[in-house]
This record gives sequence, C-alpha cells and structure tokens, in this order.
Amino acid sequence: MAALMVAPFFALCAPAHAEDAPINLKTMGSFHVGGRLVEISGKPVKEMLFSPGGVPVKVDPNGTYQVEQMYVQYFIPANERGRVPLLMWHGGGYTGVTYESTPDGREGWLNYFLRKGWAVYNSDAVERGRSGWAQYPDIFKTEPVFLTTANPFERFRIGAGEGSFSQDPAKRRYLPGNQFPAEGYDNMMKQIVPRWTSTDEAIFAAYLAEVDKVCPCVILFHSQAGPFAFKAAQAKPDKVKALVAVEPAQVGDPDKVAALKGIPTLMVYGDFIAQDKRWPTIRKNGSAFAEKIRVAGGSVDVVDLPAIGIKGNSHFPMMDRNNREVADLIQKWLSDKGLYK
Amino acid sequence: MAALMVAPFFALCAPAHAEDAPINLKTMGSFHVGGRLVEISGKPVKEMLFSPGGVPVKVDPNGTYQVEQMYVQYFIPANERGRVPLLMWHGGGYTGVTYESTPDGREGWLNYFLRKGWAVYNSDAVERGRSGWAQYPDIFKTEPVFLTTANPFERFRIGAGEGSFSQDPAKRRYLPGNQFPAEGYDNMMKQIVPRWTSTDEAIFAAYLAEVDKVCPCVILFHSQAGPFAFKAAQAKPDKVKALVAVEPAQVGDPDKVAALKGIPTLMVYGDFIAQDKRWPTIRKNGSAFAEKIRVAGGSVDVVDLPAIGIKGNSHFPMMDRNNREVADLIQKWLSDKGLYK
Repeated sequence: MAALMVAPFFALCAPAHAEDAPINLKTMGSFHVGGRLVEISGKPVKEMLFSPGGVPVKVDPNGTYQVEQMYVQYFIPANERGRVPLLMWHGGGYTGVTYESTPDGREGWLNYFLRKGWAVYNSDAVERGRSGWAQYPDIFKTEPVFLTTANPFERFRIGAGEGSFSQDPAKRRYLPGNQFPAEGYDNMMKQIVPRWTSTDEAIFAAYLAEVDKVCPCVILFHSQAGPFAFKAAQAKPDKVKALVAVEPAQVGDPDKVAALKGIPTLMVYGDFIAQDKRWPTIRKNGSAFAEKIRVAGGSVDVVDLPAIGIKGNSHFPMMDRNNREVADLIQKWLSDKGLYK
Repeated sequence: MAALMVAPFFALCAPAHAEDAPINLKTMGSFHVGGRLVEISGKPVKEMLFSPGGVPVKVDPNGTYQVEQMYVQYFIPANERGRVPLLMWHGGGYTGVTYESTPDGREGWLNYFLRKGWAVYNSDAVERGRSGWAQYPDIFKTEPVFLTTANPFERFRIGAGEGSFSQDPAKRRYLPGNQFPAEGYDNMMKQIVPRWTSTDEAIFAAYLAEVDKVCPCVILFHSQAGPFAFKAAQAKPDKVKALVAVEPAQVGDPDKVAALKGIPTLMVYGDFIAQDKRWPTIRKNGSAFAEKIRVAGGSVDVVDLPAIGIKGNSHFPMMDRNNREVADLIQKWLSDKGLYK
C-alpha cells in the first residue's frame, strides 16, 4: 500500500476537477426500488384532528400499505469517467445526506466523485429519510431508536469517549488532533434520523433491488452498511466490480468469502481506534474478514489512515476536514484497479 | 391571462434548455435549518436487540435530542438566470421527491427549472424525509398518519373518486383524460412518508428559518404548503419576490392580506375540480383569498388550466404527463414579472 502515501496533488489542480469548475451533468433524478404491499385489517376507525381547532376526521387505518421501499437519487456526469456507476450507502441512523455537504458546509464526497466523472447513486436505506418508514409494531416489529446529542460524539471517535460531550460547545472534549469539524457537530446531529434494529432483512432486500437495477457498479459504504454491502456482493458477485468499505461496523458472511475473490476490496479505517472501547474489536473483525477473503484467493487492501500519515480521522472521514485527502486515496485506488478512464 | 394560452414551444427547442443538453452546476449541496433541543428525562432504561439473535443492549432514552430541523438540498446553475433563487415546498405526506423525477421516470420540475437557469432549493418539511422526526407523544403530540394505496388515488383527482381504486392496476378507474401517468402510480406511493397533524408550528418555524437563510426568493409550493408559504410571505414580505401556488390546499391569514400586496402571486389549479366532493370548496377558498389580496392592492393571477386549454391535470401537475407544459406557463409568468434575466 506504499503507493497510497503519495497523494495525487496534481489532480486537485486540474481545472476539470477543481471546486470552481462547473459540475456538468447529463441528467439527474431519483427513483424508489423494492418494497412490498402489506394489508392491515381489523383495526378500529380513529378520530383525528388534521388541524388545531378543526373538526375531527374519521380515519380508517385498515387497508393496503406500500412499505420498505428505498429512495435513490442519481447524478450522471456529461463526461462519464467511471467505468461503472458508484453506489453510496450510508451508516446507521443516517441518510444519503452523509455524502452531501459536510456538516460545516464544505463539499462532500458526492460532489467530489461527481466532479471526477463518476455516475453516483446515493440512497436512503429502508426506514430512513426519503424511503419512509412503516407502522410499528404492526409492520416493523420493534420501536425506533433515537440518538441523543451526546451519543455520536462519544461513540464515533469525535470526542474522548464517555462523558466527553457537553451541550455547551466550549466544554466538549475532542480527541486531540481530531479532524471532525467541531463547528459542524450540532448541524451533523440534524442529519440523524430515527432507526430501527429489526429491519435488516428489509434494508438488505432493497439494496439487492438497487444492485439489480443499477449494477454492474462499485459500492462505497460506511459503518452499518458494511454487512449489507459485503452480503450484497456475496449474493451477486458478477454485479459488483469493487467494494470500498469505509469504517465498516460489521462484515459479510464468513462462509461465503469465496464469492468475493473476484472483487477488489478496499477497507479504510480512521484514527483513535486503539484507545477506544469498541473499535479495536470492530477493526479486528474487519482484518479477520479481509484475511479470509485473501485465503480464498481475493484481493483486499486494508488501510489504517494514520499508518500512511493521514492523522486525526473520526468515524466520518467523508465529513472530516481532510475529507478530500481521503477521497483522493479512494479515487487513486479505484483508478489503479482499472475502474476509471 | 390570455397570453398564457400561447405555449412557448420555441423554448423547448432551444438547445440550452433541451433535455439532451447538460445541466451545468456551479455547485450543489444540502443543509438543515431550524429545529430545537428537547430534554427527555425520567424514562426507564430499556433493553433492546440491535441485531437478531444478538445480546440485548441497555438503552437509556433520557437525554437531549435535536428535533424539528428541516433538510434543504440546493443546486446552483453555472449561469444563473433567475433573479433570485426558487424555493420548492411540497405537500402533505410527501417530500422534496415531489419535484424530482416523475413517478414514471421523466424529468420533473426540479430539472426543468435548473435547466432554465434557476438556483433551486428543494426541501423536506419538518417530520418528513431527510428532516427526520421526533418521538411521540413526548415531543410530537399525536400519532402519525399513514396513507393507504387507495387514498391519494381517490382523493387527489387521479381516479374517479371513492371506490375507484383497485390494487389491480387493470381495474383502476381513472378520471377520463387524466394526465397522471397511470404506470407510475404504484411508484408514486413509494414517495409517500408518514405525516403528523400536530406539527404545523414546527413546520412553519423551519420554513421561516429557510426564508431567513436563502431569500430574497420565489416560493413555488404545492397543496399543504399553501398556508405555510402564504403565511411565510405575510411574515417576511420583503424576502419574497413572487409566490407560485400549485393547487394550494389552504391559504394564508385573511387578516394580513395587505402584507402580500407587493408580491405577485400565481395560483394554478388542475382539472376535474367541479365534479369532486372536496375540491370545489378548496378552489373557492383560493379564489376568495386572491380577491382579498386584490382588494388590498395586490396582484394575483388565478389560472384554471382547463380554462386555457390545458386539460386533464390531477392534483399533481409536476408529475402529470404534461408537466413541462404547466412548467412553461409558470416560467413564462415568472419571466413576465421580471424575475428572469
């Protein structure tokens, strides 16, 4: 992985990729994939107020509902340079907003890869964002989880672990040298949406539907999307030309690593892992899975950013101050794999 | 309004606006506006399963939550031709997806106005889509409403009223000559997200925050956004340069019409209103409000599309087969008002 240490700075200076050059799109749009119809019956008719002080309206909750579909927004550059489209899958509690502007208002990875000429498909997992969500406990079987403002700060290697968060920005204790944009933290909390812990099957089914519709492709994925992306590639190996795992929280099916042997894979981890309570285990599981793929004949590059001189990254390298530097590394890797023209 | 009958067909043929010319963006991105912090306390710690078969995790629901923010995605053309940005506000139960691709996969009004050179800010109202939603009944005071697959078909002048929907597409009874793309109906249902009926205040507050951040502007709004947009303009008349009300479900504050006298307003209604159960009243309320604004010295153009020869529109002209024709009318009106260069 030594070659990755040489950042391709010349690329940043080329006018076609600079942030002051236009993003030229052939088209853009959105669609939903997957989902199913569910019948609800035997419920009492409810009286509801649709506006304060209004007349109560009778609402019959019985009927057929469309549920578990997934929203995908796509951008097709006028001059496509990726050999296949790039799918972006976000982590738990987040939406496709993960890859849009950073919480402090800089350009995110969606713009970065579009400017490079990749067709990008950015989705909201089932149950989140523009994918909508379904009644519980009738359809989703559990209650949703809501994250406090302290939770991501202490859990995702932004702050210095438990107790490091304060509602007062001046009193927050950041990991020293952290690249997460401190001034954007409160805005990042606004990106977070409720999530369920009982919807993995539905989320996975919709991702497979996206792969069927859009791929062959590269999948770039973050955190909770780890198992979905590895398992999607294991289910449809001919459709996936490369996997870029950014801090995957979990991995794929260890009994099906042979399916991944033809799919070049990059795993990227940020800083501050050794000193964290949970992340050493997560990181170790990633290595072990990579080793299994290699033993089965596959090719996996595991990059610990600090080991190649890129220091201070949180769990969110796409939002961190040096997000372009990490994107350069991914772009170079994809190019080295022959996926860029 | 006679001039509106002459559709500007030449504009469709100009290469800069045609669908085969690139969309050239200076930049694009997203942000959240508004919202507030809420403290939840005194709740018992819950045991939750984060993955099927896993170890139960203790989740403490007490703490501070970020709620009621609004998601805004923006696109800035390289050659801006609108004199101010164009804000797009969707209707009840929907998100900004309303203005993206049509449910049958054609380009929607977002692309149309971008190709014309407008900077477009497309949002998801508080509680919906990428804006997220808050715990109920702790923060939101009521339960959410879910729409059956039959509901929009029968209520929004696509099908021929109550009883016209069938889950079997072949058995659906459309209003004769309806422009809604029949093959896209099931896909349109995938766009719909749960909504509340007790969140008007929070939705309005976030819209005001967007107006403060982005405007001066034009606001183009649909259905439920009617009262929010009229009232936002009444609250901040200096910030709003024109209002385009597409089938507004309700109107603004009748006691504050004088605030709107300097804001040119276009109200557009589709077809099949007279024969509907609810829409004649909604339409009449629109006319009455327009007349009040005129009496106060304002300028309002009310267009019934069938009266100028544009027939068959449902409640969703931005999705209908002739969506470009209706957009042409809006574009011409904005241009006539001096808002396009």
